[in-house]
Amino acid sequence: MKTLMKGNEAIGEAAILAGCRYFFGYPITPQTELPEYLARRLPEVNGVFLQAESEVAAINMVYGAAGAGARVMTSSSGPGISLKQEGISYIAAAELPCVIVDIMRGGPGLGGIQPSQSDYFQATRGGGHGDYRLIVLAPASVQEMADLTGLAFELADRYRNPVLLLGDGVLGQMMEPVSFNPLPAGETVKPWATTGCRGRERNVVNTLYLNPEELEAVNHRLQEKYRLIEARECRAETYCTQDAEIVVVAFGIAARIAKAAVDGARAEGVRAGLVRPVTLWPFPYRMLAGVLKRAKAALVVEMNAGQMLEDVRLAAEGCVPVSFYGRTGGMLPGSRAVLEQIRLLGGKKYGHYVRPA
Amino acid sequence: MKTLMKGNEAIGEAAILAGCRYFFGYPITPQTELPEYLARRLPEVNGVFLQAESEVAAINMVYGAAGAGARVMTSSSGPGISLKQEGISYIAAAELPCVIVDIMRGGPGLGGIQPSQSDYFQATRGGGHGDYRLIVLAPASVQEMADLTGLAFELADRYRNPVLLLGDGVLGQMMEPVSFNPLPAGETVKPWATTGCRGRERNVVNTLYLNPEELEAVNHRLQEKYRLIEARECRAETYCTQDAEIVVVAFGIAARIAKAAVDGARAEGVRAGLVRPVTLWPFPYRMLAGVLKRAKAALVVEMNAGQMLEDVRLAAEGCVPVSFYGRTGGMLPGSRAVLEQIRLLGGKKYGHYVRPA
Amino acid sequence: MKTLMKGNEAIGEAAILAGCRYFFGYPITPQTELPEYLARRLPEVNGVFLQAESEVAAINMVYGAAGAGARVMTSSSGPGISLKQEGISYIAAAELPCVIVDIMRGGPGLGGIQPSQSDYFQATRGGGHGDYRLIVLAPASVQEMADLTGLAFELADRYRNPVLLLGDGVLGQMMEPVSFNPLPAGETVKPWATTGCRGRERNVVNTLYLNPEELEAVNHRLQEKYRLIEARECRAETYCTQDAEIVVVAFGIAARIAKAAVDGARAEGVRAGLVRPVTLWPFPYRMLAGVLKRAKAALVVEMNAGQMLEDVRLAAEGCVPVSFYGRTGGMLPGSRAVLEQIRLLGGKKYGHYVRPA
Amino acid sequence: MKTLMKGNEAIGEAAILAGCRYFFGYPITPQTELPEYLARRLPEVNGVFLQAESEVAAINMVYGAAGAGARVMTSSSGPGISLKQEGISYIAAAELPCVIVDIMRGGPGLGGIQPSQSDYFQATRGGGHGDYRLIVLAPASVQEMADLTGLAFELADRYRNPVLLLGDGVLGQMMEPVSFNPLPAGETVKPWATTGCRGRERNVVNTLYLNPEELEAVNHRLQEKYRLIEARECRAETYCTQDAEIVVVAFGIAARIAKAAVDGARAEGVRAGLVRPVTLWPFPYRMLAGVLKRAKAALVVEMNAGQMLEDVRLAAEGCVPVSFYGRTGGMLPGSRAVLEQIRLLGGKKYGHYVRPA
Repeated sequence: MKTLMKGNEAIGEAAILAGCRYFFGYPITPQTELPEYLARRLPEVNGVFLQAESEVAAINMVYGAAGAGARVMTSSSGPGISLKQEGISYIAAAELPCVIVDIMRGGPGLGGIQPSQSDYFQATRGGGHGDYRLIVLAPASVQEMADLTGLAFELADRYRNPVLLLGDGVLGQMMEPVSFNPLPAGETVKPWATTGCRGRERNVVNTLYLNPEELEAVNHRLQEKYRLIEARECRAETYCTQDAEIVVVAFGIAARIAKAAVDGARAEGVRAGLVRPVTLWPFPYRMLAGVLKRAKAALVVEMNAGQMLEDVRLAAEGCVPVSFYGRTGGMLPGSRAVLEQIRLLGGKKYGHYVRPA
Repeated sequence: MKTLMKGNEAIGEAAILAGCRYFFGYPITPQTELPEYLARRLPEVNGVFLQAESEVAAINMVYGAAGAGARVMTSSSGPGISLKQEGISYIAAAELPCVIVDIMRGGPGLGGIQPSQSDYFQATRGGGHGDYRLIVLAPASVQEMADLTGLAFELADRYRNPVLLLGDGVLGQMMEPVSFNPLPAGETVKPWATTGCRGRERNVVNTLYLNPEELEAVNHRLQEKYRLIEARECRAETYCTQDAEIVVVAFGIAARIAKAAVDGARAEGVRAGLVRPVTLWPFPYRMLAGVLKRAKAALVVEMNAGQMLEDVRLAAEGCVPVSFYGRTGGMLPGSRAVLEQIRLLGGKKYGHYVRPA
Repeated sequence: MKTLMKGNEAIGEAAILAGCRYFFGYPITPQTELPEYLARRLPEVNGVFLQAESEVAAINMVYGAAGAGARVMTSSSGPGISLKQEGISYIAAAELPCVIVDIMRGGPGLGGIQPSQSDYFQATRGGGHGDYRLIVLAPASVQEMADLTGLAFELADRYRNPVLLLGDGVLGQMMEPVSFNPLPAGETVKPWATTGCRGRERNVVNTLYLNPEELEAVNHRLQEKYRLIEARECRAETYCTQDAEIVVVAFGIAARIAKAAVDGARAEGVRAGLVRPVTLWPFPYRMLAGVLKRAKAALVVEMNAGQMLEDVRLAAEGCVPVSFYGRTGGMLPGSRAVLEQIRLLGGKKYGHYVRPA
Repeated sequence: MKTLMKGNEAIGEAAILAGCRYFFGYPITPQTELPEYLARRLPEVNGVFLQAESEVAAINMVYGAAGAGARVMTSSSGPGISLKQEGISYIAAAELPCVIVDIMRGGPGLGGIQPSQSDYFQATRGGGHGDYRLIVLAPASVQEMADLTGLAFELADRYRNPVLLLGDGVLGQMMEPVSFNPLPAGETVKPWATTGCRGRERNVVNTLYLNPEELEAVNHRLQEKYRLIEARECRAETYCTQDAEIVVVAFGIAARIAKAAVDGARAEGVRAGLVRPVTLWPFPYRMLAGVLKRAKAALVVEMNAGQMLEDVRLAAEGCVPVSFYGRTGGMLPGSRAVLEQIRLLGGKKYGHYVRPA
């Protein structure tokens, strides 16, 4: 059975179905429907909803609840996610599972409240300090807002790592029919959690290692885990890539727009295709490289000034020219404009490939 | 005349010579000598030193003072810089000049207090939200701590952009002779500053643009400025690169270690060379690409798990294999270990190039 | 059945039996056993324990939970209670019920961690701004810690007013047998609470009244309530006051010490008696005045520099000389020293009454 | 020469003339003209004006600057002063001089922005924890706003004690001609200040004494100082008290209104007089008691629900009936209404004294 819901609300319901019982956050447009939804729903399932004093307070409460073994979530938009960076680095260093939602709006600074994808670098390169990685999931529909939320909690627990769900204001606020298919719950055993140590050894959550050998060992363990995640958890959707000469690469809502442009190009006889990374970290370099090797050009479409572009160029390693089309500040790329870019690259009209400066 | 000083202190003195009269910060090892120095020196030149309530408070005071046209500085290490990310995005969005110092320590989380280079991603990809860039300068000696501080204030004012001075715990605390060669001062005119509007139009510092067309226009202006900086301000040191087959790429203190390894390799007949980016953003892609095209292999040496590595790979675009040697957690790479890596790549011993996984 | 418990723990258990399900606080000696107890016990009854980012955060969470109709508690010692003053004034102005525990330590400033009674003025005169009153209950045994906690929640709900339980480090940390006699629970109906307004008019919690007539009307309503509480809720213990010539007035742990001194005086033939106010606000002026009118001298004993002394003088209105004996900084008055003071005032030895300067 | 100025501005100018060079605060009506004035003026005299992150931050900056020997000021209205209570207790405990301005508005809670006197208890009984006292000065004109500001800095330094200037919204915002008569400056020597210890013993600012004997000794020293201040620094204005049968007691702006009522009563043949305490602590008990002993009734007039009333009753000790007339919430008592109260007490009409309940 499907329910018509906003994307932000779908995240909320999916989180509850995934066993999330704690939410700590602070309001900011365009994600406010999510805390609003949980403020109402969490008490109904004996959960705790708390609007914190600040974003800094919220992420540290997440740190505490995660350390105690709870399934816990926070959400914000760009400015709030920036304030959380210290806490995120701590949680990643302490190897604690939690889910962080960023419903992106136009930046930088206060920016605006219209949708954007301009926190890609922050999400995938670590806005915080030190060598750590977040698993970053990028939904492209309300249904995926729900599905990837469930997956986020699973991956967080499996790898003891924070997972970032990276949406945008369109996805957060649009309504689509959604069905909830929660994973079989299964009490996760967390022997490392600080649940009160009566009858066992004391568990300690700590990120301070004054001895550099010890800290290097921690980093080695982290890096090994990241290699494992890179090997196992890359996810991407491909569309018409089998014979694609022009490969569009886009994520999230931009990928839906790009898909329409690919259809348009195909209708005109241009062999276009689409790769949509679903995991932004780990980024599906290998898979994308395979597609690009058979192609003549790549076009990256983002709602920012060119951030995933770097990952596509790292995948391409110079094997095809990579061009970029982006809009910023809350403006959406139109599928017509994307089609125009495809035509420029692949088109009958020009008969050659143009590499933008 | 040269004075024997710690790197942190050299930054402090150079800042004062550059006309910096405001410092807002919060103590954290290994940068504390810098605020200590300025706590003593700033009052002597009628300046203001203020230890803020928090890192968040400090960066917002920097925001305020920069908006009022002052030359202003803050400093911290990783955890503190993470807390400042919201403020940094605001200052970049408001196009205000200021200098931020990050004396890196081992991370993530609290990590340790030994030196590191693991905030490279945060520095160059923007730890904050939205499409913005910091100019990032990476000194490799106490003398450069001083020289690049002066340059930082110049570039900040010239481009109305925050400049990040990215050092590490070795550079901050080692003592070397330093001479101060301040740029000719020259009162910088800042007609945009909020200095009190009697007799002129009111100046407004703002980063909120609810109209997305307006916000996109702001982003266009920012991106144009960033293109200009990329064109004009790339800086790098090269060493023995003319005929280099093995090109080591390293920055900061790691580059000094690498240089000794290059010397060692040359002594063994291996044609090694070094490229040391001084500006990490804008990264000297073009120059490095030129060097790499003539080479057989690249070796990136960092005190992290491989961050600048991505920029080197973006420069190489697959033209040479790029391998990596790094230490983390406060451990220093030894020049002997680097030399061993060079041997592996270029060496007499193996006669072939190994590309690490 | 009696259990041997610390006073701080007895408060915790009594709060749970009174239906308290929310605790927000921050650790400080000598009250830390209370949050520790609740951190363990509240989850067992589906309650919420949260260690807040700061005392300011904690009291504002209390404000929120109280507004939503929950039975909620916070606790601290002097420095923390001072930080809560803004919040307390808001809660009193909004006429919301909650229980605040102050386990006093020596002050002012950081002071020490030994017991004290030096927050009497703050408790009874309002440390916050504006004309408001807290109901202040002063237990003198572990049993009363429990009993008065139950009463505190009852009075808070009955009068929609914050109630302060004013203990000290001795009471908090001493162990005594205690039995729990919870009042019959009975779901309190709170039609004013912000519980979600579906199906009824929206409830608003507010303390801002820009129209001074409106704000004066609010103050009239508050003052009428305070007159009602003064008329109904004064509580005090009297001991040997029927024929007392020397009346000792003391509260809390100091009253237990004073009682031993009264016994000692009686054994020597001095007609001493004790009045122990249990409600510090409303202060039992009338009852005390009645006792003093029959007496020849009053002696106030406090663990501070003379605060309740003012209330005793307001009750006496010059009808008997009022002298004072106090210790500060965590020092306890000995019953021998108090007896010596009684002798000075009433004694065979001197045959006259001395009024100290 | 007189200048027409607002009371808030007069405080600002007088502070600068008194050598105040540091102001840390946070905006709140009705005192905002004071920080605004100093934001403009302090830079002109090489001073520092800083709008802090919060009231808590501001008072701790005052603590720091005072410890370093600077003449420093902060200001706020009720809610902000409540937030400062912890800091105030620390500064009093550390025996540091500073000036705190409270321009009172209607409370409790957010209350309103109209004038009030409802922070009297907080000011005189210590809103913070522990046994400490602030010197509290209550101006009644713009000229006194200036004069008492100068005196405040003098007393603060002389007694190493925080001084509170307690005004209200009328005094803060009304304009009157004012002349500035700064006290002869004279560099105050502060050998205890933490100015950098080269060449002398290290100075320590501390309020923590874990040993209760030590903390009691600190309290003894404080109480001795307070006795000295009580003996030396009581200030009050008397008006027509020589033969007064009805003594009105009022402070601040309420005293100006009461004075007009006294004139009105005299015109009708009623022997009324006025006592206006200028120091609210130390309160002029002895002087007031002398006046009351010759009188038949006292009338306390306040813009609150009856706070100084307690001090007047402590002075009267039952020798005359003490009645009260007050307005709250920002409402001003009219001189006509006060006159009516005088008539009720002293009047030809009734021929007897009525003591209100």
